[in-house]
Amino acid sequence: MNSSNDPNVGAIPSFKLYESERVFAFLDIEPLSQGHALVIPKHHGAKLTDIPDDQLEELMPVAKKLAKAMGGENYNILQNNGRLAHQVVDHVHFHVIPKPDQEQGLGISWPAKKADMEKLKEYFNDVKAKI
Amino acid sequence: MNSSNDPNVGAIPSFKLYESERVFAFLDIEPLSQGHALVIPKHHGAKLTDIPDDQLEELMPVAKKLAKAMGGENYNILQNNGRLAHQVVDHVHFHVIPKPDQEQGLGISWPAKKADMEKLKEYFNDVKAKI
Repeated sequence: MNSSNDPNVGAIPSFKLYESERVFAFLDIEPLSQGHALVIPKHHGAKLTDIPDDQLEELMPVAKKLAKAMGGENYNILQNNGRLAHQVVDHVHFHVIPKPDQEQGLGISWPAKKADMEKLKEYFNDVKAKI
Repeated sequence: MNSSNDPNVGAIPSFKLYESERVFAFLDIEPLSQGHALVIPKHHGAKLTDIPDDQLEELMPVAKKLAKAMGGENYNILQNNGRLAHQVVDHVHFHVIPKPDQEQGLGISWPAKKADMEKLKEYFNDVKAKI
């Protein structure tokens, strides 16, 4: 998303791929690769946690529809929340990003560490109690 | 996911955060940050395009539930399809990855380019016809 916090006002150039009652999908005009598209709920909210459950249900079926139409074997689905996590526009948007080769598409680095199992268990008990 | 292509066989250590008829969520034991969790459809399929729509509907509501429980302001939702796109285990899984600071969590690089609008329009017409 590039031009507006509210794509429904028409400020986004008209590369609309799909629209339903709850969801809107269009091509990104500053793509990471050919086919880079966005799937958004019409319900306005900055982060995933701001969107009602029923407005979230159709997002992955629509992302799948786009991925099928694009036809590539490799692609990423990404949704960023907060500036530290690379979110620029404060309306929830899911990127569908084809990965045709190493140079194009989403660049990922993966600083994984094996968990300390005792600490993980403590954390698990803590977070599980909040679900 | 670390231990098995089929988490339903019980090979994944038991850090299960949530389970419903269609969805399963658990902590990653090689986390990018504290709280790194996975949300998966029980329906087996390697890529997003392999999962029936009705088995996709609950994934984002569950990811939201986890993000809420974790409580951080910054987080990424990521689902990788294909080796080039960083997929290692061939069962669809959505990562919920807290981003507490620059060092921890998902590392993203974003090689965006402004689209050539004429070419984008051609591509748009092509892909739109397939949706």
